[in-house]
Amino acid sequence: MKIEWQNIVRKNLNNVREKHPLVHNITNFVVMNSSANMLLAQGAFPVMAHAINEVEDMVSIANALVINIGTLTDEWVESMILAGKAANSKGIPVVLDPVGSGATPLRTNACKRILNEVDITVIRGNASEINSLVNQAGKTRGVDSIHSVDDVADGAKFLALERKAIVAVSGEVDLITDGNRVVRIHNGVPMMSMITGTGCGLSATVAAYVGANEDAFEATVSAFSVFCLVGEKAKAESKGPGSFEVAFMDALYNISDEDIDRADIR
Amino acid sequence: MKIEWQNIVRKNLNNVREKHPLVHNITNFVVMNSSANMLLAQGAFPVMAHAINEVEDMVSIANALVINIGTLTDEWVESMILAGKAANSKGIPVVLDPVGSGATPLRTNACKRILNEVDITVIRGNASEINSLVNQAGKTRGVDSIHSVDDVADGAKFLALERKAIVAVSGEVDLITDGNRVVRIHNGVPMMSMITGTGCGLSATVAAYVGANEDAFEATVSAFSVFCLVGEKAKAESKGPGSFEVAFMDALYNISDEDIDRADIR
Amino acid sequence: MKIEWQNIVRKNLNNVREKHPLVHNITNFVVMNSSANMLLAQGAFPVMAHAINEVEDMVSIANALVINIGTLTDEWVESMILAGKAANSKGIPVVLDPVGSGATPLRTNACKRILNEVDITVIRGNASEINSLVNQAGKTRGVDSIHSVDDVADGAKFLALERKAIVAVSGEVDLITDGNRVVRIHNGVPMMSMITGTGCGLSATVAAYVGANEDAFEATVSAFSVFCLVGEKAKAESKGPGSFEVAFMDALYNISDEDIDRADIR
Repeated sequence: MKIEWQNIVRKNLNNVREKHPLVHNITNFVVMNSSANMLLAQGAFPVMAHAINEVEDMVSIANALVINIGTLTDEWVESMILAGKAANSKGIPVVLDPVGSGATPLRTNACKRILNEVDITVIRGNASEINSLVNQAGKTRGVDSIHSVDDVADGAKFLALERKAIVAVSGEVDLITDGNRVVRIHNGVPMMSMITGTGCGLSATVAAYVGANEDAFEATVSAFSVFCLVGEKAKAESKGPGSFEVAFMDALYNISDEDIDRADIR
Repeated sequence: MKIEWQNIVRKNLNNVREKHPLVHNITNFVVMNSSANMLLAQGAFPVMAHAINEVEDMVSIANALVINIGTLTDEWVESMILAGKAANSKGIPVVLDPVGSGATPLRTNACKRILNEVDITVIRGNASEINSLVNQAGKTRGVDSIHSVDDVADGAKFLALERKAIVAVSGEVDLITDGNRVVRIHNGVPMMSMITGTGCGLSATVAAYVGANEDAFEATVSAFSVFCLVGEKAKAESKGPGSFEVAFMDALYNISDEDIDRADIR
Repeated sequence: MKIEWQNIVRKNLNNVREKHPLVHNITNFVVMNSSANMLLAQGAFPVMAHAINEVEDMVSIANALVINIGTLTDEWVESMILAGKAANSKGIPVVLDPVGSGATPLRTNACKRILNEVDITVIRGNASEINSLVNQAGKTRGVDSIHSVDDVADGAKFLALERKAIVAVSGEVDLITDGNRVVRIHNGVPMMSMITGTGCGLSATVAAYVGANEDAFEATVSAFSVFCLVGEKAKAESKGPGSFEVAFMDALYNISDEDIDRADIR
């Protein structure tokens, strides 16, 4: 099983590098630069556009759309929904990153509205963000008891089935589910959370993988696996978050088929 | 006196690392990424949010608020004031960074309006920005004679007493006053001004320190001291502004109690 | 001829370092930080401001204006035009970066409107962006046949004469024309396009050079030449896009008169 996943990851990685998917990002101001650079380093092409009178045009030439709700305002929610619907109508996959959902009503409500109006291919967030999107019926725990991806595993499966989406939960161990299958990624380093935009960059990476590959579940697992291995590689060459971020960009560019040997996917 | 300050700096530094203050930033687009990374490197948690219908919710879960007027528009001023008032009502400290105040009427007027409507804990800017906020009665010099923090020392004290705030002026030597006490930081390197967002990152750092410590004056002096020592440490390992910024992030993360021995605070 | 250009480049480079031109950028969110840092590394001073009620005040104290249409909205177009007209009335040079023009109607139409209402000193883009701005009468090729700067050379000359502007086209070889003269820069490395904001940073650099030098054509050629040589220098010291970006910032700061010996301008 492990060896099979490694081959899938290699195939998905190489498709991103060969197909150069164009990823349309409607994302937050904090990470626009780092997400663009992470996509470029992997061979994908980023475009950032949020104008209400441009997003439909832009998404129609893209291979995937990222909707990321950091630094949100009401105007941006309208653009996100318009872009999402246009993506749906053209069969372009959509990744939702519910940054800070659960922290404020604006963010939680925006996510729920987006989920109601747009078919999302992959929802990627941390445990508390994912928990905030699970309807009451799917909840088995309160917010205060959500400390790891396992605490939200049942909720993630419920959410995946309800929304017909892949739900990917970032944590010390990452968990990815389509409601039936559940896969865990046992790679990565804590330093990844010392850099702003790592999670957002992973969502953009998932979009690149889903845009360049047929099977969205395998693509999501592959994106997570590569990202975590890149983190391990970068950690070995850095002495703090500054040099870690530099080494991370280099490793995204240089990661090889051999590096995938260390992928621990179960 | 010097040894006493060093112990105070160490205590304040360790409180930031142990308490992980959540800092709500309403800041400019140029520095959102770098300010977030500087906060993370020090153990603080950044959140960026500016929507008029979200800032009150967000600031209420934060330990400190930064209002930074770079890349300002009228809409953002409204959000800043709303957030500032909410912070005031909950006793959450507020740091104002008057970026470019004095350069255009929009910025100068926005700062004065914010100062009139919000109780600011710390105002941090360079000499000409601080000078632009001093009322006519407090001015002893014209704009053209403001070249160092000493040129604005009297104005800074006047402003501090008028606004019941700590006023912190960045320069080759930094000056911090609450209107009565005046302290100068004799550390730092000129390369710090070769990187955009260093001053804004220092304001965010002051917010983290004020959010994690009891005494706002001591916290501000400590934040400045650590920041300047980090700059000296980074300079020794860099060969230009690119490697300096990387080394700066690493040094923010790695600075130790021993490094504080070099603090020159008078 | 070659030696003459190298001396011109050296003179233009030194003027930027000595005169510290203030460059007002109305630019996209993705590159605000990197453009500011690139300007600082070269001795120029960046300011970012886009508010409709501030841009005229800000541009009036600047030495050059950059209008960059990435992450555009209708509101920003109004600010760009207002700032551009104010710059024109004061004789301040304006650089237009038509990011993504040709990709969506919003961007193409915005560029054409800006070109109709503002006198632009330099238009800098890639071949397909420049092609999108050439009126039908000047087009000799369809979009699908635009693969290098040579494919758009005739169109660039036509556009330069029509708009009385310098047109600078980035590519593997760069082409700069005022409609009569045509100069090509045979330096640079492909890695430059692996970093987001390199082209936008070059537009900002052109603004700094045009703001600090008399002859806009020579200043544009010089900015391109320095930027490409910096890229070569950075490539030699990097192992991926992360370390390349760091080395690029360092090299912008450290590039010397001797480095200009490698300039290949024809």
